[in-house]
Amino acid sequence: MSDTIVFFHNPMSRARVVHWMLEEVGAPYEAKLLSFEKAEHKNPDYLAINPMGKVPAIVHRGVVVTETAAILAYLADAFPAAGLAPALSDPQRGTYLRWLFFAAGCVEPAVTDKMFDRPPVERKGSIGYGSYEDTINALEKAIAPGPFICGDRFTAADVYVASLLGWGMMTKGVEPRPSFAAYVKRATDRPAYQRFVTQGEAFAAKLKG
Amino acid sequence: MSDTIVFFHNPMSRARVVHWMLEEVGAPYEAKLLSFEKAEHKNPDYLAINPMGKVPAIVHRGVVVTETAAILAYLADAFPAAGLAPALSDPQRGTYLRWLFFAAGCVEPAVTDKMFDRPPVERKGSIGYGSYEDTINALEKAIAPGPFICGDRFTAADVYVASLLGWGMMTKGVEPRPSFAAYVKRATDRPAYQRFVTQGEAFAAKLKG
Repeated sequence: MSDTIVFFHNPMSRARVVHWMLEEVGAPYEAKLLSFEKAEHKNPDYLAINPMGKVPAIVHRGVVVTETAAILAYLADAFPAAGLAPALSDPQRGTYLRWLFFAAGCVEPAVTDKMFDRPPVERKGSIGYGSYEDTINALEKAIAPGPFICGDRFTAADVYVASLLGWGMMTKGVEPRPSFAAYVKRATDRPAYQRFVTQGEAFAAKLKG
Repeated sequence: MSDTIVFFHNPMSRARVVHWMLEEVGAPYEAKLLSFEKAEHKNPDYLAINPMGKVPAIVHRGVVVTETAAILAYLADAFPAAGLAPALSDPQRGTYLRWLFFAAGCVEPAVTDKMFDRPPVERKGSIGYGSYEDTINALEKAIAPGPFICGDRFTAADVYVASLLGWGMMTKGVEPRPSFAAYVKRATDRPAYQRFVTQGEAFAAKLKG
């Protein structure tokens, strides 16, 4: 069993977030491009890996990991030398996990609801993630102390939150706010992000080709 | 700063999941009950802890953690002696994180959509979590090898998934399937779960006053 990470990828999907993360981690990986046009993400071979038929997915040491945020958390834990997650004993790990799950469980559905103009669900107690407004405001508060989610330390939570905010503002799922733009700029001003952008263009060309 | 975990709780909410987890972990905690009737979860004091105005939340070693799944992941990591998460170097950690995030990012919105009969969003590529059917089927596949998400080992992912399935089947957000019922029974057949149930009744009575 190889230690190389197999990365199921399409550069027009959330797999971009994992691509950036892989460049941050610096571990050897092999990208397998899946064409949406050819519906390769719905092929039986791929459905055996991810029955949701979604990218990204990775296979590492014989284990499949799906869900963007799960892959980020897994890679940060599996490659501690990259320093992308607070240690288990560090109280800041609570902040790290809080915003990683908040992004997956609140920001993702809030942005989807906004983009598709879905009416909010009737809520009693805490059914559903909450409201779009509360979600965006809570996120703004989380990044306000800065420069990153866990203060001075850049973590996998920033890879995810900055990706969501950048993509959200581009697609109008997130209203543009100066603090969001400044945070995204800070988080993406990194050599690993630049490598991801350059390689992403090559992947997109390869898929078209 | 005390090492006691402060637990913001209402027994008619997702905080039940964290209550169960705290009993699994066995660390000292102090429950602070918030009345929904008195809207105590929307008081400025509590909004300073969780601007979403949702329970659960915990404060531990001076750090706030919100979002049910984040709190489970945090507690499992902070108290490794309880054995509720695979070690960082264990490949099974990928499986653990996969289904923890899948539950937060796919099962939660799928159950909400089902309960409120929301029409699906138009999807291109992988916008949105996927479909209700795919989500429920993927979850059934995940628990099929059993007995738990990570095989023989019971983890925090089971605390979350079993809670969601149990609650979902009760509220008709998840269709009843024999494998779901059997899994929930296995996961809840534990002393910590029984302690949580007994204490939960006491908490509910206290809130009613």
